Amino acid sequence: MNLLDDKETAAYTDTGVWSSKAIKEAKLFGKVEIVCSSRDAGFTFIPKDFAVPNDAKYLHITTNNTIYGSQWQNIPKTSNTLVADMSSDILSRVIDFNAFGLIYAGAQKNIGAAGVNVVVVNKNILGKVRRTIPTIMDYRNHVKEGSMLNTPPVFAVYVCMLTLRWLKAQGGVAAIEKINNEKAALLYGAIDKSSIFKGTINKEDRSKMNVCFVMNDPSLETSFLEFSKQKGIVGIKGHRLVGGFRASLYNALPLSSVEVLVNVMEEFEKIA
Amino acid sequence: MNLLDDKETAAYTDTGVWSSKAIKEAKLFGKVEIVCSSRDAGFTFIPKDFAVPNDAKYLHITTNNTIYGSQWQNIPKTSNTLVADMSSDILSRVIDFNAFGLIYAGAQKNIGAAGVNVVVVNKNILGKVRRTIPTIMDYRNHVKEGSMLNTPPVFAVYVCMLTLRWLKAQGGVAAIEKINNEKAALLYGAIDKSSIFKGTINKEDRSKMNVCFVMNDPSLETSFLEFSKQKGIVGIKGHRLVGGFRASLYNALPLSSVEVLVNVMEEFEKIA
Repeated sequence: MNLLDDKETAAYTDTGVWSSKAIKEAKLFGKVEIVCSSRDAGFTFIPKDFAVPNDAKYLHITTNNTIYGSQWQNIPKTSNTLVADMSSDILSRVIDFNAFGLIYAGAQKNIGAAGVNVVVVNKNILGKVRRTIPTIMDYRNHVKEGSMLNTPPVFAVYVCMLTLRWLKAQGGVAAIEKINNEKAALLYGAIDKSSIFKGTINKEDRSKMNVCFVMNDPSLETSFLEFSKQKGIVGIKGHRLVGGFRASLYNALPLSSVEVLVNVMEEFEKIA
Repeated sequence: MNLLDDKETAAYTDTGVWSSKAIKEAKLFGKVEIVCSSRDAGFTFIPKDFAVPNDAKYLHITTNNTIYGSQWQNIPKTSNTLVADMSSDILSRVIDFNAFGLIYAGAQKNIGAAGVNVVVVNKNILGKVRRTIPTIMDYRNHVKEGSMLNTPPVFAVYVCMLTLRWLKAQGGVAAIEKINNEKAALLYGAIDKSSIFKGTINKEDRSKMNVCFVMNDPSLETSFLEFSKQKGIVGIKGHRLVGGFRASLYNALPLSSVEVLVNVMEEFEKIA
C-alpha cells in the first residue's frame, strides 16, 4: 500500500504460508509477479535460481517460514529494492539491514510481546505512490511522529525494551546467533542420526528458528507427543498443515531446552 | 474507509480535537458535511440544533472530548446511521448500543491497557463500499475471524478481561455511572462555589470524564500546580491547547481521589 502503485509490478517469492498471505495482500494494490515458488514441492526448499524483472518495484521475501521450517540462509542479491517480512528471525542472526529497502516484523518472536510491529524503512522509497493511504497506514506519518503517531501499546513496548536489554547483555545479535547455530546444529544432528525421525526441509534451507520433523512411521507420532509431554515438553506439535513436530528455537529458548528434547528423542528411539 | 464511498457524504459533528481528526480522515475517503461545530467558541459547548441531510451515509459524533472536557449528555436522535468515537467514555455510563451503527473506542481509558481497540458494529452496514480495503482494515475480516485475524496483543487483551471483571464486581456500568456522577458533581460543585477557579465548558455539556477548569487569575496557576504536587496530586495540568487544569475521572479513579483534590483546592483558596 505504501510502495506499489496500481499499475506497477512487484516481485514476490512464494515460500510458505506467510509469503502467500503477503502475495494475496499485494494483489489488492498492484500487480504481482511470483518470481519463484516451492509450492509444488510442499514448500520444502528455498528457491535459488530465479530472475527478478528490472522494473519490479521491489522484491519481497519472507526470511523465515515458521510453519514449514525453512529459512533464507543467504539473502538474495538484487538491484531491486528488497522488502522482507522478518517477523520470525529478526535479531536471531547478523544481517546487513542496509541491503533492505523495508523490513517489517511482528515483535512477538524475538523482540517482545505481541502487539508491537517493528518497521525499518529507507525513507527514500516512501511517498512514491499516488493512492490515498489512511493516516495510520502511511509509514511517513509514523516516521514524522517518532513512532508515537497513535497512543503506543506501552506494555508491549516496555517488554521490547527489557528483551533488547537482555539481548545486549548476552553479547548482542552476534552472540545469540552463535547460540542459535548451536541449538539448531544439536537438534538437526539428532534428527539426522536418528533412524525413526527425519527432517522435512532441504538441508541447506533448514530454519534455525523452527525445526520441523516427522517420523518414518507416522503411527508413532502420537506416542512420541505423549512421551514428550510426560517429560515436560510442550508445544512441539507441528502445524496442522504439515503435521509431525515443530520445535521453535527463538532467542529466548536456552540450549538446555534443546538438550532435553534431544535426550527425550534418543530415549524414545530406544524404547520405540 | 469501511462505510463511506468516494462520492457519498457523511455528516460530522465538530466538537474538539478528536472529532477534527475524524473529519480529516473521513475526507480522505468521501465527502464530509460538518453539520455543526463549536470551534468558533473554543469548543466550549456541544451543539444542540443541527440538521443532518437524509442522504448522509452516517452521522459521526465523538461522545466525550478529552482535551476540552465536553461530553454529549444526550446522544442525538437521528434516522441516519450513528457512528461514534467512544474512546474516552465507553463503559462509564449506561448507553443504548442499539442506537449506533458503529462504535469504536481505544481501550486505554475505561477498558484496559493501550494496544486494544473495541469496535461494536452492526454487520448490516458493512460491505457497502466499493474501494479496496486492506485485509487488516476491513471490519468484516475481524468479524469473520472472531477478533483473532492477527496475533492478538495478549497482554492488553488480558488486562481488558481483568478490568471488565472488576467492573462487573462493582455492579457493572449502571453502578459505576452512579459513582462517576458523584465524582463529577463533587468536583464541579467545588469549582462552581470557588471564587478563584472556574469551569471552561457550558454547564450542561460538561464531561464527567475530564473536568477542565482554569483560575480567574492565570498567574496563580503555576503556584496551584506546585501546591497540588506537594499534596501528592499529579497529572492535572491541562492540555497545552487549553491550559489550566484537567482532572480525569475515568472509572478507575476512586471518589476518594476527587475528595483529596477538592480539599486541596479549598486549602489553596484559603492561602491564595
